[in-house]
Amino acid sequence: MAWDVFSFIGTVAFAISGAIIAMEEEYDLLGVYILGTVTAFGGGALRNLLIGLPPTALWSQGLLFQVAIVSITIIFLFPNHLITHWERWGTYFDAVGLSAFAIQGALFAVELELPISAVIVAAVLTGSGGGIIRDLLAGRRPLVFRREIYAVWAVLGGLFVGLGLFKYDFALYLLLVVLTSLRILSLIYHWTLPVKSIAKK
Amino acid sequence: MAWDVFSFIGTVAFAISGAIIAMEEEYDLLGVYILGTVTAFGGGALRNLLIGLPPTALWSQGLLFQVAIVSITIIFLFPNHLITHWERWGTYFDAVGLSAFAIQGALFAVELELPISAVIVAAVLTGSGGGIIRDLLAGRRPLVFRREIYAVWAVLGGLFVGLGLFKYDFALYLLLVVLTSLRILSLIYHWTLPVKSIAKK
Amino acid sequence: MAWDVFSFIGTVAFAISGAIIAMEEEYDLLGVYILGTVTAFGGGALRNLLIGLPPTALWSQGLLFQVAIVSITIIFLFPNHLITHWERWGTYFDAVGLSAFAIQGALFAVELELPISAVIVAAVLTGSGGGIIRDLLAGRRPLVFRREIYAVWAVLGGLFVGLGLFKYDFALYLLLVVLTSLRILSLIYHWTLPVKSIAKK
Repeated sequence: MAWDVFSFIGTVAFAISGAIIAMEEEYDLLGVYILGTVTAFGGGALRNLLIGLPPTALWSQGLLFQVAIVSITIIFLFPNHLITHWERWGTYFDAVGLSAFAIQGALFAVELELPISAVIVAAVLTGSGGGIIRDLLAGRRPLVFRREIYAVWAVLGGLFVGLGLFKYDFALYLLLVVLTSLRILSLIYHWTLPVKSIAKK
Repeated sequence: MAWDVFSFIGTVAFAISGAIIAMEEEYDLLGVYILGTVTAFGGGALRNLLIGLPPTALWSQGLLFQVAIVSITIIFLFPNHLITHWERWGTYFDAVGLSAFAIQGALFAVELELPISAVIVAAVLTGSGGGIIRDLLAGRRPLVFRREIYAVWAVLGGLFVGLGLFKYDFALYLLLVVLTSLRILSLIYHWTLPVKSIAKK
Repeated sequence: MAWDVFSFIGTVAFAISGAIIAMEEEYDLLGVYILGTVTAFGGGALRNLLIGLPPTALWSQGLLFQVAIVSITIIFLFPNHLITHWERWGTYFDAVGLSAFAIQGALFAVELELPISAVIVAAVLTGSGGGIIRDLLAGRRPLVFRREIYAVWAVLGGLFVGLGLFKYDFALYLLLVVLTSLRILSLIYHWTLPVKSIAKK
């Protein structure tokens, strides 16, 4: 049950973030749908690939695919003047997608009874994979490699789920809210991890 | 039979487009061969991967591999002054590859008796996949995301083949000519789909 | 035995090269670990994927994973002033990784009794794959496509190992030293393959 909810939330959020970035880059109508769809399903596909599940699992998600298409259509038709800071909204939706898919990926790995290290890797891959593919296709530096703390929140989600600290659905939803908030706070207050700067030649 | 013809045409066209872009970017001899080969086989490999076929199918294409190598060699040795608009030729060859591989990918999916939606996805993936990988490796924005209509023609090819409208070989060859022409016309007359432009912050 | 040694050397070298490039790009602490790890394991994962081995083989390398983490930690903590030319060191470590993984990939393919052509492809993929993924993620032109001779040395390694010219461990270690030296000499003396330059429109 919770699994389906996280898949739904993550798909909607990433589809919208991909669509927003495609519009920022002035992609055409079809480009917006392609980038939105790839962002929504890229993380799960990457995780399945590396975990060794048949990639065809991708094609059994007909309902989620329709959810993504509807989400992208809504955001494409959304009146421009109602949203003044598209880029900010793009990163906020990405934050929701990151958190929802990190938890979903971790639950997925726990279901397969993988060790805690694999649960964390699955959380990071599922949470950040779609966004990395999106940013590469848009010619941008992946969010995960920018200044504000990003993947740490996926690691944290994987750790908490992997340790079995969040067993009840309610607790998982709470975790989603907490992780998303932490990521958005990282953006607003420019929270960063240590950076070791070395001079380029 | 038609399948082999489309594989042949697509391989030659994409190998040449990859080689031309590599030369534009001043890659060395081996770089030209690598980018040409990756462009020619990338789309099919991506499709097989996502459709769930063993990636090893890649290695049973020894003849096509030789065809690609020969095509790249010819274009590398081609007298510079005989072609004045290399970039234009690069996109024209890409148009042929897009159309040939879209049809080939669609025929492939029809053979596996996949539903029409999967036929279209296979057409788009096979038709545009090699070019996307090529452009990413060359540090360029993928053609599929540029202004002029691109993936629509692959969608159309997948739709027509999937609906069984083009059953005879002759009709399929006609479809190849039509799709390629439409793509080249898109380039010449700057046909575009609707774009929704939102201001970057 | 030799196989394990080459895996070890390649993992350390590529992990360090990824970490150095991440630091040059001012990635944060976690970004340095992610890029270092992806560089160290990307080439082998790509090879396994294309050769048709289960991608899960990735997860049985627990020891190498720890080796990569330790290597990245050491380079991250390394006193800045002791290394004046980080970029140069980054390419030198990449040279070691290229050679070690080319030989390892070739040995791997020989073990599977693949034909000589596949041995060469495995050498090139394993040797250059991690670096290509690293450079794409860092938004750089892949080293393999830059001016100085790169992939040729992996081809040469694949050829020699495939022909069975280097059967004894000692000979293989010698080959590692020779290939690495040739790559570093290519950098220092700007050895290049023929380039055919065509004007961009």
